[in-house]
Amino acid sequence: MSDTKINPQLLQLRDQIDVVDAQLVNLLGQRFGLTAQVGVLKKENGLEARDAERERLQIVKVRKLATDAGVDPDFIENLFQSLLKTVVKNHQEI
Amino acid sequence: MSDTKINPQLLQLRDQIDVVDAQLVNLLGQRFGLTAQVGVLKKENGLEARDAERERLQIVKVRKLATDAGVDPDFIENLFQSLLKTVVKNHQEI
Repeated sequence: MSDTKINPQLLQLRDQIDVVDAQLVNLLGQRFGLTAQVGVLKKENGLEARDAERERLQIVKVRKLATDAGVDPDFIENLFQSLLKTVVKNHQEI
Repeated sequence: MSDTKINPQLLQLRDQIDVVDAQLVNLLGQRFGLTAQVGVLKKENGLEARDAERERLQIVKVRKLATDAGVDPDFIENLFQSLLKTVVKNHQEI
């Protein structure tokens, strides 16, 4: 038997989490759409796929946002490092 | 000189990406808030910190959402595996 049978309040929280998860995936889809446009622009303008200074500033910014939102900044940094790595890989493939 | 000096369109895309990033961090903050409530409920009801079946279903669901949104499902699965791991760690600490 699943845990959820026991507690309707738990079920309700899980429904809310599922809504947030769908929003997260949707936002990540939007983000990859935007970075794909960046990749094309960079190629058209002969710019490097990677901009280390921009990445550094993004990490500083999301760490601050995390702290303000009460989220572990190290968790957020790891997530964004992995995101930026994927984006650079995509840019290099363009 | 930074890349951004060269191309106003790039600057505009980066602004849009920064808005999405702030929304992502905010949503993750909401999610950790909800899972913290789940952690307390589980403790109060003597439930295990981890529910492997729920995790399996979450991964199936976000992979499908990713595919529908044109996002690499492996990237999304890795992100959520790391998210679920952090949540279980937090639950065990409650």
